[in-house]
Amino acid sequence: MGRTDEKVGYQQKSSYPGITPDIAASGVEEALKVLEGRWKLIILFYLFRDGTLRLSELERAIPGITQKMLIQQLRSLERDGVVSRLVHPVVPPKVEYSLTPRGQDLCPALDELLYWAQRWKGQPSGPPTVVNTQKD
Amino acid sequence: MGRTDEKVGYQQKSSYPGITPDIAASGVEEALKVLEGRWKLIILFYLFRDGTLRLSELERAIPGITQKMLIQQLRSLERDGVVSRLVHPVVPPKVEYSLTPRGQDLCPALDELLYWAQRWKGQPSGPPTVVNTQKD
Repeated sequence: MGRTDEKVGYQQKSSYPGITPDIAASGVEEALKVLEGRWKLIILFYLFRDGTLRLSELERAIPGITQKMLIQQLRSLERDGVVSRLVHPVVPPKVEYSLTPRGQDLCPALDELLYWAQRWKGQPSGPPTVVNTQKD
Repeated sequence: MGRTDEKVGYQQKSSYPGITPDIAASGVEEALKVLEGRWKLIILFYLFRDGTLRLSELERAIPGITQKMLIQQLRSLERDGVVSRLVHPVVPPKVEYSLTPRGQDLCPALDELLYWAQRWKGQPSGPPTVVNTQKD
């Protein structure tokens, strides 16, 4: 069989010894699970930008989200260890949300996904099927 | 309100002027849509590693996937412009799959997601709620 690896000339940039495609895929799947959910990305990007936000500030920043839904999404992000909740014992109660180190550490990956989306936005994807007219 | 941005000391690394959290979130969502689907990540990681693969090779590499499902996932990746299909007009027909430049360009983002998953795997996520005992 005529392998075209050389022609493609592509090497995966990551260098995890012993990481098979299966292990890599399940690792990435795990990361993506944390981001799943209608409002999680927008919550994370607000916290990336602003550092710390109160519930009411997040609610104002994200039009269309209900308070119930916002709390649900925050709870889920807290369970996954990417968002922390700081309770100030004052009257009226003051609760602030921010990213944990684990959450802040998501930034390079989200940046790369954003770069990718920006780079290829609106560019034609090219013909999905190419017929090789040269006999091989 | 006591903003703690300075304490957190975190700045988003990306520097897209004019990119709001909303725009960033929808850009990343677009990228994630391409990766959604039970087998897409594993197909991509095999193509990252091997460059070009025939359908039968992908089928052998991914136990548990049916040929129908594999073809469906490949068609979807082709529609999104990340995988290309090269047909050699020979008997028996020979069809090879590889990544398009757009597909290869996903590698840094997938690598970052994988790094993240590896770095934080098994580490306790810490208390989701912290009570600030200092009056403010």
